[in-house]
This record gives sequence, structure tokens and C-alpha cells, in this order.
Amino acid sequence: MKLEVYADRMSQPSRAGIIFCKVNGIDYTELKVDISKREHLTPEFAEINPMKQLPAIVDGKFKLFESHSILIYLACAFPGVADHWYPADLFKRSKIHSVLYWHHSNLRRAAAAEAEKLLFSSLSKIESFWLKGDGPFLLGGNQPSIADLSLVCELMQLEVLDEKDRDRFFGPYKKVQQWIKHTRNATSPHFDNVHIILMKVKEKLTNKPLMEANHGGARDIEKRWRSRM
Amino acid sequence: MKLEVYADRMSQPSRAGIIFCKVNGIDYTELKVDISKREHLTPEFAEINPMKQLPAIVDGKFKLFESHSILIYLACAFPGVADHWYPADLFKRSKIHSVLYWHHSNLRRAAAAEAEKLLFSSLSKIESFWLKGDGPFLLGGNQPSIADLSLVCELMQLEVLDEKDRDRFFGPYKKVQQWIKHTRNATSPHFDNVHIILMKVKEKLTNKPLMEANHGGARDIEKRWRSRM
Repeated sequence: MKLEVYADRMSQPSRAGIIFCKVNGIDYTELKVDISKREHLTPEFAEINPMKQLPAIVDGKFKLFESHSILIYLACAFPGVADHWYPADLFKRSKIHSVLYWHHSNLRRAAAAEAEKLLFSSLSKIESFWLKGDGPFLLGGNQPSIADLSLVCELMQLEVLDEKDRDRFFGPYKKVQQWIKHTRNATSPHFDNVHIILMKVKEKLTNKPLMEANHGGARDIEKRWRSRM
Repeated sequence: MKLEVYADRMSQPSRAGIIFCKVNGIDYTELKVDISKREHLTPEFAEINPMKQLPAIVDGKFKLFESHSILIYLACAFPGVADHWYPADLFKRSKIHSVLYWHHSNLRRAAAAEAEKLLFSSLSKIESFWLKGDGPFLLGGNQPSIADLSLVCELMQLEVLDEKDRDRFFGPYKKVQQWIKHTRNATSPHFDNVHIILMKVKEKLTNKPLMEANHGGARDIEKRWRSRM
């Protein structure tokens, strides 16, 4: 039976899971659970994830939730996932766990609570600590790990903010900006495709006409990114 | 060079790390970083952990922080740690990751934010979901994993509350109560030894003319505790 991924692309951890599957050629079925329709709170979905959160996966008889746990499982369970995503080396792997838990205690809470102070402090720590190595990715990596994917997907949620606010948040953090760009490129074209839904919401919020319908979402995002970076 | 564990036994993740080392016969040096004296904020400690949080470890040239990440590392790096603490089996291991990330997103935040509602909801989920299996430990295990140790150490922080408040929190959750006892027994005598400092503080608090209790009660005490973490 094919891997089932229960997700809503409006949610950043859902997107990280989907991008991971696509980038690594993991064959899966995406089952949309519409959070805006409260589908994640139904008894049917509680059978999949009793915590009623997204994403969740079913792989044969095995059910799993919590996005980081899912990313680690996928990296281990499916052949062909490159080692850089979740290195076999214990020291490298431990550092990735360290980022992922740090993410949960800091960045993810910051976004959820819209606590600007915590967000700035988190961005500052990414800039000055996690990105202080030689490579363009977290922990000095030359290629992305699941930690890069997860954190960048989290930060993409800020894309719905207007230009002024985005610049206020990201402006001081040049390495963070570059890192987002590198992660996006390393997971192209899936990264943009999976974020189309977010860009559509952004369009609605800013009352601009939907360009995606005419020109294709990914290309529209491409333009935005080029104009920004 | 011997493993160095930087910890303050007043902090629950520190205690989890120390108990884990002791139970598994890992030879280590415990270096006290006194949070009440703000020693975790010194430039010296920032060399060990730039995030200025406890616990942190140094193993030879390898530095690591975030308590769950440390527990996983210790389970993998030191020979003689029984498999049940962090099973090699991918499915079992993934479920443990799932608990640990859930812990960070829920239980740990509940304690930090003094959010009674989230605490009750977390205890309820431990009782009805994580402890629903046949065995006395999380995920139906017959022996504890690092997830049991981490979560029970978190809940022990509530031990400083007075009897009435503790009963109010734990009273409805019989399985949780049993599970705490089982985890304590499985890690005896280290569990109690490492919690002595907490019990001493509790004694001080209860022997005082209940200044705290009269002016804000359990929440106030909890707040005091958390401010030291």
C-alpha cells in the first residue's frame, strides 16, 4: 500500500513533509484535510491522528504524527533519500536533532504566538549561530537537511505579511535570506509548487488579482523572489 | 576525556540527563551551572552552549544542547545502554520521536506558560493516548524509554505544589500516577537522589509561612520555578 500523507498545504509542517516526499521521489498519496473546514477535528481523522494535528502519515499499518518525527521516519524508511537530509553519522545527526528541538521550543512558538520579540531573537540565533558555518545551510552544511526544510517552511508563513513587515523581520538577517533562497533552490521546483496555495492567500489578503491563474503560480513566485533577492 | 554534563538539578531537563547517565552507568563529570546565580548567562557558559540553556554536554570535541537531542546522543554513543531506552527498530524509534516532539509542543509549554488548561489537556492525552497500551510505560512499553524519563521529569516539577493542587492536577489521571511511580522505580535509586534538591525546595516552601501560597498560590510558585530554568 502506498504511503498516505494527510496534509493541508496551508500548514507549514504539512508543506515540509510534502516537499520532502517530492524532492526524494517518495511515492505517496496526498490526502487533503482542510483545516479551514475543521476536517482535522472530525472523528474520521482522529482515527489517523488522535492529536488531531497535521501532518500525519499512514505507511501500511504504521501511523505517525508530529512533522519532525515524520521527516526522520521518511528519511530512514525510504531508500534513495540522500544522506545529507538526515545523516547516518551520529554527531551530524545529533546536531540535527538539536536544531529540530530548538525549532520547537523557539521558532515555532514564535510564529504561532506572533510574538515578535521571540521571532527576532530566533532569527538572530539562526543568523549568528546555526548559519555561522562555511556552507550555505544550517550547521555549515553544503546540502540541506530536514532541519533546513522544516525551518524554512516555518519562515515561509511570514510570506503572507506585506512587504514592509517582511523587510522589517528579514531585513537585518542577510544570511537567513540567502539560506531561504538556497533551500528553495535545492528543492526546486517542488518548493514553489507546494507554496502556491500560500501565495494565493497572500494575493487575497492584499486584494490583488490572482496572477497564478494566468501565468502559473510557480512562475509568479519566481518573479517575486527574483525581485526580492 | 570524560563526558561533561553541564546541569542544574533544579531544572527538569537537566535531571533527566543526569538520571539517564546514572541508570546506564555512563561515566561523566557533572558541572553545576547555577541558574539562580545566572551562571548560564555568563560568557564562559556561552562557549559551551551559545543558547545559554541547560543541560548541555561536551564529549571530547563534540558539544551538544537541547535535552532530547542529548538523551538520543547518549543512548547511541555509549555502549551498554539497553535498547528499550531508544530502540534501534525504526517504527519504535519513530514513535518515541513522536512523543518527544509532542512533549515540546504541549506539555513543556504548558508548564512554562502556567497554562492550566493546556496542562490538563496534556495530562489527559498522556492518560488516554500515550498510556493506552498494555505495558505500564508510554507507547505500551514494558520498560521505559527516554520519552518516559523526559516527560516524568517534567511532571515532577509539579511536586513543589501543595498537596491540594497536586491532587487537583493528578487526581483524575490514575494511569499517569502509576506511570510516574513505575518510571521512578525503574530508575531507582537515581531518580530520587537526583530529585532531592527539588524536595528540599519544596520543604522550604511549605515550612515558610506560605507567603507565596497566600499571594498567588501554586501559579506563583510555579512561576518562580520557571524563572530559574
